[in-house]
Amino acid sequence: MPYVNIKITREGGPEGNGPTPAQKAELIKGVTDLLVQVLNKKPDSTMVVIDEVALEDWGIGGLPVPEFRARKAARQT
Amino acid sequence: MPYVNIKITREGGPEGNGPTPAQKAELIKGVTDLLVQVLNKKPDSTMVVIDEVALEDWGIGGLPVPEFRARKAARQT
Amino acid sequence: MPYVNIKITREGGPEGNGPTPAQKAELIKGVTDLLVQVLNKKPDSTMVVIDEVALEDWGIGGLPVPEFRARKAARQT
Amino acid sequence: MPYVNIKITREGGPEGNGPTPAQKAELIKGVTDLLVQVLNKKPDSTMVVIDEVALEDWGIGGLPVPEFRARKAARQT
Amino acid sequence: MPYVNIKITREGGPEGNGPTPAQKAELIKGVTDLLVQVLNKKPDSTMVVIDEVALEDWGIGGLPVPEFRARKAARQT
Amino acid sequence: MPYVNIKITREGGPEGNGPTPAQKAELIKGVTDLLVQVLNKKPDSTMVVIDEVALEDWGIGGLPVPEFRARKAARQT
Repeated sequence: MPYVNIKITREGGPEGNGPTPAQKAELIKGVTDLLVQVLNKKPDSTMVVIDEVALEDWGIGGLPVPEFRARKAARQT
Repeated sequence: MPYVNIKITREGGPEGNGPTPAQKAELIKGVTDLLVQVLNKKPDSTMVVIDEVALEDWGIGGLPVPEFRARKAARQT
Repeated sequence: MPYVNIKITREGGPEGNGPTPAQKAELIKGVTDLLVQVLNKKPDSTMVVIDEVALEDWGIGGLPVPEFRARKAARQT
Repeated sequence: MPYVNIKITREGGPEGNGPTPAQKAELIKGVTDLLVQVLNKKPDSTMVVIDEVALEDWGIGGLPVPEFRARKAARQT
Repeated sequence: MPYVNIKITREGGPEGNGPTPAQKAELIKGVTDLLVQVLNKKPDSTMVVIDEVALEDWGIGGLPVPEFRARKAARQT
Repeated sequence: MPYVNIKITREGGPEGNGPTPAQKAELIKGVTDLLVQVLNKKPDSTMVVIDEVALEDWGIGGLPVPEFRARKAARQT
């Protein structure tokens, strides 16, 4: 009985606005296979929910992701 | 002090794209009443949050929901 | 495909330290029945996870639950 | 290693449809600073995710938020 | 910036009371690698949190997991 | 109507095994005050839930936290 929630920032993918349905299907398959291999869980009772989160709604280092990355880039130049 | 999070796939309802506000209100009332009856919780300190999840973002059996259902239907015919 | 997470403060029940297994079973049955009645969801693809939270880990009104209740009681006398 | 999830109803802000990016940045900064001050956590390993929830998807007192507020206002007049 | 939450029933493992630390490390490594491979995410900004849930706190099919399995086993004999 | 969930590794505090009740109360007060100041939310409808997570259950960089820190320390010497 596993339940997995994957939260990712909405970016990347072919259009730059998030993963494709095929990439999401890979995540779902991959994490389900992992639970089967490591813990012998049954796929049919394994649920996966993917949430895409806008960049402005995700913070790290006390900053929204875009500002965090801009500062990091500035420090490295 | 209960907090209830209900995640459902975005489907069904009159337009096929998710429950109506009235159906959501029924869920909120029903789960709050349940917590009152079973555990004597107070409605005014019971929060309910409903999340609708796109079918492609929900996995079961190692597959996104639409593929999972398609395979299941194919096996049954 | 519903997933329901019920968080409650760990209190009440016959010993004062949380609901009994039978009460938890009532919550599981009740919320599953609700999703069947309101949205025609299938019980076998409905997961429910109950979390009990210690009183000191739950805040309301800017205070942990025990202090919040103590102040409220003091105001009412 | 903190992870903070802030769920708020989608309302308020200059347009009435939720907080501005600047307000979200204040939330991210404020909660990260709090974890540094109280628990000496490191900002770079502190993640914050903000979710805005439609009013019809949030329940309190057994009612969706708009109905809950309408009844409360009616009782006070 | 991924955040992954894996909830599993507390069972299995060498003692029957849940996965070992080594198995949890495999889950953490496996899901992080998956996010690197599929979405090119950075491991250092990928957090994973594993929650073990008591069997009586997990419901499926309207029943706590132990009762659900007992009924299923009974039907198959 | 905010709901805030703060997840932290179970460490630190006077005994090394997590924050004290007083520190948790500071977190609850601090995050509630923040929501009042930034978004004008009402304290009485602001819930906060704190979860402490064992170090072995928290992963970063593809490793459980203790291994992640050990490798980082080794690289810096």
